[in-house]
Amino acid sequence: MTMVGQERVRNVLFIMCDQLRWDYLSCYGHRVLDTPNIDGLAKRGVRFDAAYVQSACCVPSRMSYYTGRYVSSHGATWNYVPLSVVQNTLGDFLKGAGLEAMLAGKTHVIPDKLGLQRFGLDADSSLGRHYLQGGFSELDRYDGHSSPGSESGYADYLRAQGYDSPDPWTDYAIGALDDNGQAVSGWLLRNAHFPARVDRRHSETAYMTDRALEYIRAKGDQPWVLHLSYIKPHWPLMAPKPYHDMYRDADTGPIISPAAETTAPHPVLQAYRQAHEDCISYGKEDVVRHVRPTYMGLIKEVDDHIGRLMTELEALGRLDDTLIVFCSDHGDQLGDHGLGEKELFYEQAVRVPLIVVDPRKSADATRGTAESRFVESVDVLPTMLEALGLPLSDHLLEGRSLRPILQGEQVDDWRDCVFSELDYAFRDARVLLNRKPDECYAWMVRDSRWKYIHYQGFRPQLFDMRDDPQEIRDLGEDPQYEEVRRCMKDRLADWLMERKRRTTIDNATVERTTEGWKNLGFMKIGVW
Amino acid sequence: MTMVGQERVRNVLFIMCDQLRWDYLSCYGHRVLDTPNIDGLAKRGVRFDAAYVQSACCVPSRMSYYTGRYVSSHGATWNYVPLSVVQNTLGDFLKGAGLEAMLAGKTHVIPDKLGLQRFGLDADSSLGRHYLQGGFSELDRYDGHSSPGSESGYADYLRAQGYDSPDPWTDYAIGALDDNGQAVSGWLLRNAHFPARVDRRHSETAYMTDRALEYIRAKGDQPWVLHLSYIKPHWPLMAPKPYHDMYRDADTGPIISPAAETTAPHPVLQAYRQAHEDCISYGKEDVVRHVRPTYMGLIKEVDDHIGRLMTELEALGRLDDTLIVFCSDHGDQLGDHGLGEKELFYEQAVRVPLIVVDPRKSADATRGTAESRFVESVDVLPTMLEALGLPLSDHLLEGRSLRPILQGEQVDDWRDCVFSELDYAFRDARVLLNRKPDECYAWMVRDSRWKYIHYQGFRPQLFDMRDDPQEIRDLGEDPQYEEVRRCMKDRLADWLMERKRRTTIDNATVERTTEGWKNLGFMKIGVW
Repeated sequence: MTMVGQERVRNVLFIMCDQLRWDYLSCYGHRVLDTPNIDGLAKRGVRFDAAYVQSACCVPSRMSYYTGRYVSSHGATWNYVPLSVVQNTLGDFLKGAGLEAMLAGKTHVIPDKLGLQRFGLDADSSLGRHYLQGGFSELDRYDGHSSPGSESGYADYLRAQGYDSPDPWTDYAIGALDDNGQAVSGWLLRNAHFPARVDRRHSETAYMTDRALEYIRAKGDQPWVLHLSYIKPHWPLMAPKPYHDMYRDADTGPIISPAAETTAPHPVLQAYRQAHEDCISYGKEDVVRHVRPTYMGLIKEVDDHIGRLMTELEALGRLDDTLIVFCSDHGDQLGDHGLGEKELFYEQAVRVPLIVVDPRKSADATRGTAESRFVESVDVLPTMLEALGLPLSDHLLEGRSLRPILQGEQVDDWRDCVFSELDYAFRDARVLLNRKPDECYAWMVRDSRWKYIHYQGFRPQLFDMRDDPQEIRDLGEDPQYEEVRRCMKDRLADWLMERKRRTTIDNATVERTTEGWKNLGFMKIGVW
Repeated sequence: MTMVGQERVRNVLFIMCDQLRWDYLSCYGHRVLDTPNIDGLAKRGVRFDAAYVQSACCVPSRMSYYTGRYVSSHGATWNYVPLSVVQNTLGDFLKGAGLEAMLAGKTHVIPDKLGLQRFGLDADSSLGRHYLQGGFSELDRYDGHSSPGSESGYADYLRAQGYDSPDPWTDYAIGALDDNGQAVSGWLLRNAHFPARVDRRHSETAYMTDRALEYIRAKGDQPWVLHLSYIKPHWPLMAPKPYHDMYRDADTGPIISPAAETTAPHPVLQAYRQAHEDCISYGKEDVVRHVRPTYMGLIKEVDDHIGRLMTELEALGRLDDTLIVFCSDHGDQLGDHGLGEKELFYEQAVRVPLIVVDPRKSADATRGTAESRFVESVDVLPTMLEALGLPLSDHLLEGRSLRPILQGEQVDDWRDCVFSELDYAFRDARVLLNRKPDECYAWMVRDSRWKYIHYQGFRPQLFDMRDDPQEIRDLGEDPQYEEVRRCMKDRLADWLMERKRRTTIDNATVERTTEGWKNLGFMKIGVW
């Protein structure tokens, strides 16, 4: 039985990469990288060319994917901030329909232990675990920042493959031997050119793909929703053979230099460049040229495993009844603008690849097309829920299902701008700028022409994305653009007003209970 | 032992009236009403002459008092909206210090039963009750909208006093006999001039004052925090003898007529006037002249009981160690602007009386003074907590402790404007205006000169509070004031940005964990 042409899909495969920059795939125009398997997804579905994340930082961005809510609404504003146990996630929405959100890989959900304590709920209870895990059931959870803990089988797996170590991740997966045979760490950028000691068949990406395939096979014709969440091409930047030097001699592309900027750098940008070691390192061309090939190799590796996945899905007949989402939590500066890593609001950080394959006949017309309208990561959850035939809780969800676009319907009121947020309170930039923890928020509004960035306590930034797509001319103080800035701030204000703050009662109940006192019979308010 | 001159107060008496308009007390300048006991509070403390509520509606306003957070932050936007179980209230903050927030009267907390179910917590468990009751321990809870339920002893009390009825509240407390001896209801405004059948010694106000006094006496020298929350002068508008006709022949003051308005009414205002029965009734001068005397009588009754309270507190020695707050949840239009009841943003609705008596020697200099700076209801909770010597959770609390003002300190950065919010989704106005439940928010920004009101989907309103204190000239569309409106909307935008959204981690932890990965030892981000 297949679901093609049916109203609902049966399964969802929600693939996320970590820190995969939008333009580092061949289907998005990369001139060196060849990613035929991800390109294959784009051929089967829709490639979104203007997809933005709600924050260019793991936790806030992921929590927006998982809740369908903007960062200001879910509150997990940065990587150390727990997701409140009251936030409804993919897993909560599925739970109501008897489904579960299965995880293989990374979520970066920071457990809200205080939230759980508040209700006297044991962290080891099934309900407690559900909320601490952000609503996911964990096939194998591995956030990839440290040696795999008990929630992942990766360390045991490596040992079983013969990697004899109490910490095979450190020693093999992100460990290498230098030219003198000395053990060196993938934590240090200088070692990025060495091959990891792990065999490609046993890498983090390979392992997690194996887990996903086992799960899909085992489910057979039972419906499933799987979040396959790769920790690559995120650091530590070390790839197994042959990926480690596949692009060593390749063109690693241009670097957008801060020297090209026409005005003094914005204070927050400047603080990032001064205070953060990643920016200091990536501010050097040598470093950038040294690490980009590894980053590319790690992407190539992901692509190869997407190929394995697709081959197996096809063999199992799952391509016919499975909605596939391929995305990233944010991009990577890779030295552009004198920055490393992510955060802030350059296209390198906030723009991501997003490909959606809808197996239904109703989506046939859009297969292989590229979509230029703005979409946001909050759209992914409503898209998945609607495809599964589940109701959309419109008092909570702030994104829009992409179904009309996927099915080629005319939509007259699609969004014409996107928003992203930043909280740099946990960064040294805050200390350098002498800001309090509550004074470090910033917002981006980007439409087809302008990118406006509002900072608390500092001047705004403004870029003309048509005439200056590289974002090197900051018009944030140019008197000529005062009206543009005003209009963009106004859009930001309107957007802030539209946030969904009434979360304890749904909209249908609001409609049903409008002037509800009249139905009580006895109550008479203001009646003569 | 007394606490005078000590650093902390021992007790807090947090008195709230319901729907008490700011100018209906003699200390606030009412020309007919004589409220010597409330005036006496003002003589002992500070009378705040520019105190505003965060919403002119019971639930959202009260939840702001109880959480110290604006309506957009606590989310209980209207009277039917549950307060999320994760919102920290007075009771939660006290709980951490081994104290409890005791309630005598009304809170209007709508229990978040779904929130509790989410954590598998039994509504009958002690923790479950704590959250469903908004963190209060209930000496006697009585919201005053219907016959007292099991959480109040009032019905039993009335029966014990000889009011023989299955529903003595309906039959006696808000019931009267008309001129023909027929039973009539206080629900109907037309009956407002009849005396309630309850004796003044047994009225709702008398009963709840008795409960408070019993509690205070029983506590002796033990510290306590008591929320004595009167349901009067809120409807049903029926007062016992002699209050029912004390002001029957008095001057009931001017009525600000919509006829005086210089522009067509704002669409939302117009919808209120057209769709809501209270506005239709109060739009008639006869009705207003008929009910105002009863409203005044009910206030006089409250004042008499405040007198009893004060006499007893003095006798018990509690005036020396008790912080007293006297306030209201919102005002009452009483026919002004062609409106009944509350909501929207006229001074009649959003401005309230607020008197704070700080017993400490450090507050001696301000006793009997009037304070003209802007204060908001979110300031009350931090004021109480600080007086008790408790820490202020600055990642949650959005108000400021009034202590510096009470103690006559110079404050250079006090707020220069106030904010209030409205959600009219549950009102017939929404239906008349054909709005969806999520499109009915409005915000007020009021500074010393201007009151700006922003509505979703409609033009704004603007009043010049200096030249037009009666708010009859709506400058919301006047081209001459475009720049003023722009500035005020900008302030609203900045305020929206400042909302405290990062609630799962406190600011001290943010400071402590800034760049916390560096302390992990093994982790090296962006290090060459």
